[in-house]
Amino acid sequence: MGQTITEKILSDHLIEGELTPGEEIGIEIDQTLTQDTTGTLVWLQFEALELDEVQTELAAQYCDHQTYQFDFKNTDDHRFLRSAAGTYGAHFSRPGNGICHNVHRENFAAPGKTLLGSDSHTPTPGGLGQLAIGAGGLDISVAMGGGPYYVEMPEVVNVRLEGELEAWATAKDVILEMLRRLSVKGGVGKIFEYTGPGVETLTAPERMTITNMGTELGATSSIFPSDEQTRDYLERVGREDVYVPLQPDDDAEYADEIVIDLSELEPLIACPSMPDKVVPVSEVAGERVEQVIVGSCTNGAYEDVLPAAKLVEGREIAKHTEMIVAPGSKQASEMLARQGWVAEMMAAGVNFSEATCGACIGIGHVPASDSVSVRTFNRNFEGRSGIEDDNVYLSSPEVAAAAALAGEIVDPRDLAEELGDLEAPGLELPEKYDGSKADLITPENAIDDELIKGPNIGDVPLKDELESDLGGEALLKMDDNITTDHIIPATADILKFRSNIEKLSEFTLSRVDDTFADRAKAADGGFLVAGENYGQGSSREHAALCPMYLGIEGVFAQSFARIHKANLFNFGLVPLTIDEETYDQIDQGDEIEILDDVGEGVRNGAEEFTVRVNDDWEFTARLDASDRERDILAAGGKLSWTKAQYDSSSGAAPADD
Amino acid sequence: MGQTITEKILSDHLIEGELTPGEEIGIEIDQTLTQDTTGTLVWLQFEALELDEVQTELAAQYCDHQTYQFDFKNTDDHRFLRSAAGTYGAHFSRPGNGICHNVHRENFAAPGKTLLGSDSHTPTPGGLGQLAIGAGGLDISVAMGGGPYYVEMPEVVNVRLEGELEAWATAKDVILEMLRRLSVKGGVGKIFEYTGPGVETLTAPERMTITNMGTELGATSSIFPSDEQTRDYLERVGREDVYVPLQPDDDAEYADEIVIDLSELEPLIACPSMPDKVVPVSEVAGERVEQVIVGSCTNGAYEDVLPAAKLVEGREIAKHTEMIVAPGSKQASEMLARQGWVAEMMAAGVNFSEATCGACIGIGHVPASDSVSVRTFNRNFEGRSGIEDDNVYLSSPEVAAAAALAGEIVDPRDLAEELGDLEAPGLELPEKYDGSKADLITPENAIDDELIKGPNIGDVPLKDELESDLGGEALLKMDDNITTDHIIPATADILKFRSNIEKLSEFTLSRVDDTFADRAKAADGGFLVAGENYGQGSSREHAALCPMYLGIEGVFAQSFARIHKANLFNFGLVPLTIDEETYDQIDQGDEIEILDDVGEGVRNGAEEFTVRVNDDWEFTARLDASDRERDILAAGGKLSWTKAQYDSSSGAAPADD
Repeated sequence: MGQTITEKILSDHLIEGELTPGEEIGIEIDQTLTQDTTGTLVWLQFEALELDEVQTELAAQYCDHQTYQFDFKNTDDHRFLRSAAGTYGAHFSRPGNGICHNVHRENFAAPGKTLLGSDSHTPTPGGLGQLAIGAGGLDISVAMGGGPYYVEMPEVVNVRLEGELEAWATAKDVILEMLRRLSVKGGVGKIFEYTGPGVETLTAPERMTITNMGTELGATSSIFPSDEQTRDYLERVGREDVYVPLQPDDDAEYADEIVIDLSELEPLIACPSMPDKVVPVSEVAGERVEQVIVGSCTNGAYEDVLPAAKLVEGREIAKHTEMIVAPGSKQASEMLARQGWVAEMMAAGVNFSEATCGACIGIGHVPASDSVSVRTFNRNFEGRSGIEDDNVYLSSPEVAAAAALAGEIVDPRDLAEELGDLEAPGLELPEKYDGSKADLITPENAIDDELIKGPNIGDVPLKDELESDLGGEALLKMDDNITTDHIIPATADILKFRSNIEKLSEFTLSRVDDTFADRAKAADGGFLVAGENYGQGSSREHAALCPMYLGIEGVFAQSFARIHKANLFNFGLVPLTIDEETYDQIDQGDEIEILDDVGEGVRNGAEEFTVRVNDDWEFTARLDASDRERDILAAGGKLSWTKAQYDSSSGAAPADD
Repeated sequence: MGQTITEKILSDHLIEGELTPGEEIGIEIDQTLTQDTTGTLVWLQFEALELDEVQTELAAQYCDHQTYQFDFKNTDDHRFLRSAAGTYGAHFSRPGNGICHNVHRENFAAPGKTLLGSDSHTPTPGGLGQLAIGAGGLDISVAMGGGPYYVEMPEVVNVRLEGELEAWATAKDVILEMLRRLSVKGGVGKIFEYTGPGVETLTAPERMTITNMGTELGATSSIFPSDEQTRDYLERVGREDVYVPLQPDDDAEYADEIVIDLSELEPLIACPSMPDKVVPVSEVAGERVEQVIVGSCTNGAYEDVLPAAKLVEGREIAKHTEMIVAPGSKQASEMLARQGWVAEMMAAGVNFSEATCGACIGIGHVPASDSVSVRTFNRNFEGRSGIEDDNVYLSSPEVAAAAALAGEIVDPRDLAEELGDLEAPGLELPEKYDGSKADLITPENAIDDELIKGPNIGDVPLKDELESDLGGEALLKMDDNITTDHIIPATADILKFRSNIEKLSEFTLSRVDDTFADRAKAADGGFLVAGENYGQGSSREHAALCPMYLGIEGVFAQSFARIHKANLFNFGLVPLTIDEETYDQIDQGDEIEILDDVGEGVRNGAEEFTVRVNDDWEFTARLDASDRERDILAAGGKLSWTKAQYDSSSGAAPADD
């Protein structure tokens, strides 16, 4: 039987299991990627595992989220990460050098390789035929130590592209169309593999816009073939040596097929406050816009910013509209500057920022209250911009630039007709991506050979083995689609405590209920209750670690987002699935008792647990977990489990017992 | 008798009083300047005065301090300021367009005119022969309403420049030399007037580096003649029409004379943590540097950044050193970008930021703990960078760039010798300052005609008339040189409450004693006690307004910084001078009672008040105040006083009584 691209790469890297959808597999990881807000914990865990050196082919540590360094804690984190990269043999990308996904694709991504990253948009280089998966930080620590990465074998879905994009339609509209059709839950447990005659009409950067934002579908990853477009891009970044062709077999079998005719796409926009609330731009035209931002890992590359620059060149943006451009990498900034585009954008009234994730996670350029912001980002979850009740729209750079010129949302085709001389900028790749690599420090040129910890960089908390009796209050009942931004916000005032779990925990779920953390600490045990898709969004493992630190023992939800569920196992919280009726019946404040022996049930493969509420009524909760996940859960989490394994195999005494 | 430049301009603008040093004069203000962290209150006060329109020749509102907009409150403030400028007829400079002093000198500064600004570095265009003074926001509100500005006639000191700067010595070294000789208190009550043959060897931008940082001497202002260099600069910024020549008369009399031989200056550096701790760079050479920042209103202009760019061109900065460049204006950024310098800096490893005050006030790029930062800024007060116990050095761009290349403090002459091919970049002005003005919105093109207040923008608190009996606890005893940064920190987490006095007050003096605000509120009345030079630094009137809001009734200090003392009058707090012996005797917690009738004494010109401590011993405190200041103090502050005047003259009922 023929293989999909996904199956080919997985076969090459398979260590445990079989490639049957739903079954757990263990795969070898070639490359890892960490950024600053998740990386500190990754390296603290790597330190706790007492390993000497990174074992993967390549590990890269980026500083991209907190580049404005609002607090010394941010700057201390960056210095710690530099020291960790130096100590353990990883590449280090300095703050201001760019967003991890952009710098990684420029410098390291390679077709056929596996990449595991502690950032949910890790699938970006899927556009180059790399199998790239986002995971919790602890999984990255273990992978860097040479351990396999365990994941449920996803279904592989064929997204067949036909036709060719017309003027003003872009790769962003392809992924917005996917979101429009499938919703933010449509990709759960799936890898989207793009095939068909439309594929070769898309350059590798366009493909990476699509694979990047495939994350918003809830997908495990997205991937394109590796072909002449891939080779072409790799030549332009000066790494043609890593090119290998990669295509699905003609008789590859897919779980499902979706067909998109590129020629039928028009400019689309995602409305507040979910990336799948997608409509044609014309449907929301006329909405006054006070802020436009071009950038992010989705649309922050040289070839993403260039169309926006061309559109504003020689014009002025609307006076009531602030337009900020934050390129995805300093290489992009440098090239745009060298070619005069930065000056042209500034002349038009653009506020040109350093290369940063920044505003995409609510760090900087928070919108004014009761105002509309149009952004080329990938997410517009409510409050993620840094203000509650925000009105953030997501679009292509073309649509964003048009909004900045008009001061309102406008279909760029209509604006072009109105202005008469506005041409569709199209896509233009540079001959060579020839920016400097001054900010990328190789392991050979490492600055530090020991860890430098500032006063805010704490220890990693460990959990004890899972107990037999679990009971406590339903401390918080939440709706559907609670994101990790709800669980642990990433705004600057909170982000700075990412390396200080005790302090960070005080903000747990504060956006849902600001009394939660205090109540949880006082209760010393208890449960969370949620609807569908609990824990969607960013991969941050703090969203499991902080509830664990507060004493939460388990989460009852109708369904879980993939990465977050893995994080719950990794930090020893029991993720239990309930049906809608049960969800409706449970009230916040209910006293919950799991009647079965939980520790034993988890170890012995029990899939159902009987739960008693207020000593009054009972329901059944399901535990869907692999043997390995059960072992981890029983041990009190992956760090305890991995450390125990390491200790028993080496015979060495634990370091701090 | 001949006149100094200062006297000539003051004579032209005199409304009340005589030009006798120490006497209060009232002068007409031609131009005002406000920025975002002080401007919101200025406009709220302007609104409270119920005036229709700005009465000065020109008013300009800038957004420069909080440009990263890390909270919606910042963005709301910017929108409010845009709406206020539009409503009342001021120019509005959008966030990202640059630092007020830089944008003002490029667009509006003019020799012979008076400028009043709610920022302590307002004297910058003194380098163009403008008499520019920093003041509290309320003074600006009144000036914008057409009222005179009252100030004690300063002594005018002649700073006679001889010779010419040698390679690697810069204008920054001139002002650092002044600080080395005179200290941060050396300019109190003085205007420094630069004369002598050395003057014509300095371009207007160099002169403005000197007048800008004259503020650190505690001076009321600093000023240069208006001559061919002035005309030359005005031609380059396209405003030769505002040129008028201005020289002191040959027989002008000065209170004092200081002579500096420019040819004897070498590269200097101010050590942590005061701008007057100046030594030759070579004395601290070898200190490892983790951060270098080029920018600020002192050294952020095109011709300031250019030397740093030339030095790093074709090289790479040290790998353990982060170098950030934040130009003073977008015009500078645009020109540097257009000429390729931005690309060259990025290639060398520079993190190129938007045009912002930013790091200079602890907003962004806070140094790592226990690390050294070299900056081209004007202040290095402890903690101002955003971290306590910081180690911030102040230098020229040349010295800063050399530190970035070497990774340690180094005399650039030594580095040049070591490298062999590093040449002194010297000073180079552009043919034309030809950046876009897209971000400067004129009153004619105003966006808004009514105020837009976000939910964080509150009302202005008013104080009642001064009472007869003042008594209470000495709530806090402080050392010498307490800055307004100590009184109300300007870090991002606090700055966002500048328009919300109730909330902002919670942070009052928290850097000295974090229990203070709670204790003050509980005490409902009481006093502050301080040593010499209380309230030095930034002009922020919140440093008086917040203690007023907390119920503080007076401050006993050995001496007061000029602007802060005016702010104390303006907000109805009694500033009383005590001698060193008394200062030593008072303890925090002492019960203090002013035995005289304070309200009556203030009104009747009493200069001495008898104060009883703990019902045990007595001392005499002096009130040094003009009649006008006494009226203001008695009325409960300038806003109450001005409003009462306005109400009585118009016969209109107060708006909200």
